[in-house]
Amino acid sequence: MTSPDSSAPLGVFDSGVGGLTVVRALRELLPNESIIYLGDTARVPYGSKSPDTIRRFSVEDTQFLVSHGVKAVVVACNTATAHALPVLQATFRVPIIGVLEPGVEATLAADSCERVGIIGTAGTIRSSAYQYALAMRKPDLQIHATATPLLVPFVEEGWTDHPALKSVLKEYLKPLLDKGMDTLVLGCTHYPLLIPVLKRMLGNKVRLVDSASTCAAHTQRMLEEKGLLRTVKSKPTLEIYLTDLAEQAEALAKRFLGTEFGKVKKATL
Amino acid sequence: MTSPDSSAPLGVFDSGVGGLTVVRALRELLPNESIIYLGDTARVPYGSKSPDTIRRFSVEDTQFLVSHGVKAVVVACNTATAHALPVLQATFRVPIIGVLEPGVEATLAADSCERVGIIGTAGTIRSSAYQYALAMRKPDLQIHATATPLLVPFVEEGWTDHPALKSVLKEYLKPLLDKGMDTLVLGCTHYPLLIPVLKRMLGNKVRLVDSASTCAAHTQRMLEEKGLLRTVKSKPTLEIYLTDLAEQAEALAKRFLGTEFGKVKKATL
Repeated sequence: MTSPDSSAPLGVFDSGVGGLTVVRALRELLPNESIIYLGDTARVPYGSKSPDTIRRFSVEDTQFLVSHGVKAVVVACNTATAHALPVLQATFRVPIIGVLEPGVEATLAADSCERVGIIGTAGTIRSSAYQYALAMRKPDLQIHATATPLLVPFVEEGWTDHPALKSVLKEYLKPLLDKGMDTLVLGCTHYPLLIPVLKRMLGNKVRLVDSASTCAAHTQRMLEEKGLLRTVKSKPTLEIYLTDLAEQAEALAKRFLGTEFGKVKKATL
Repeated sequence: MTSPDSSAPLGVFDSGVGGLTVVRALRELLPNESIIYLGDTARVPYGSKSPDTIRRFSVEDTQFLVSHGVKAVVVACNTATAHALPVLQATFRVPIIGVLEPGVEATLAADSCERVGIIGTAGTIRSSAYQYALAMRKPDLQIHATATPLLVPFVEEGWTDHPALKSVLKEYLKPLLDKGMDTLVLGCTHYPLLIPVLKRMLGNKVRLVDSASTCAAHTQRMLEEKGLLRTVKSKPTLEIYLTDLAEQAEALAKRFLGTEFGKVKKATL
């Protein structure tokens, strides 16, 4: 097996455009890396679908990136990470990183962490992947997880400061607050856009762990360890592929990425 | 071309399980008909996707039903009807009925109808299919349409009487009420489950047009005209195929259909 070329791009995929919050964090931390992003917008969301289907879609997404010559793959989707990461790592030769492990590490980095709340899609929460990974590392941790399927639609509608959203958050978070949570894991790459409203609602009492930025730090470490950091001096590129080019997806992509980008390309899986 | 067999089942498809509200209405009106339902739960929703993708998915859905020997196809999805009905009718030999035409007829059946509001997914509203069909029939009609993408997630979460839903509905309906709408077209097969909360909010001032029940009446008429009503005495069957078998989809299916049913089968398109 030849080792991957460090000048090759990093591959990132998500069920839709939410994973661009991870790309944003990667570009801040690793500004010299080229990135190929694939958003499976034709079949989004994954969070409400079954483990079998999520695994099948994730293998197809990874196959697309690998066939475009990426040196490593970041699974920028909590649902895909929770259900498909082991399968992907067993199937493909390139290093594959998920969003979950970095989130778990960041959660446990604070010694004061005793009661953790986790929010995510139905698929992520039902997988128990976060719950399991946290419990394995810190057996006395109190963990309370709840599926919050309405949050992605609110983020996509752009109503991130609407009274209805606050009412929804209040309902979802009440059982977690009743248990006295000190840390809240945002187990979905859409949720970083809710950080401002969550900070206003929760104040300083609850620490927020955002999987997007922790995943970027993890990726940096992995690239360093494997000698895969891009060292060539040419300008890095960003290519964005979507499996469906609805207008709304492009507009959303800009919000998640936080910047303008070139023409989005259509991918057929 | 041989004419279809009247004892054959009726085919019904939707992007997910919302179309079961149409199956429910069909079974009430046509209790002697056998039905094969296909819900494309692996790729749901269609409402936020592009016209090209919606057409491609709809052709695949119809192909599945036709290959199972159905005598006619009901497109129980407003988004698929709005974008794909002409393509489907041009591609397949069996009669194909959408939810849109029946809804338009029912809207205009009341002489008092002067100011119509339409709510639906982003895809349905952006297609302007309802707006166009209404304007062609009654040029002086005042039409105000608005995309209401948060309503399907609320119905699927089962929060059909939650204060947050009322706040969302209030925001979505305000511009329509400001225009003095007398009729509200529920342009999505998920929305019949919102009729109770809408009636409480709107009282008797606004007439609600529900595409599920009007589509069933239209189907009955078409089957009569073409001599396709099932006359055999054996017990009719109901087969439900889904492209993804998430637990949540099966639970939801029961709510939309309003009754128990046999084992759901997995369809691969």
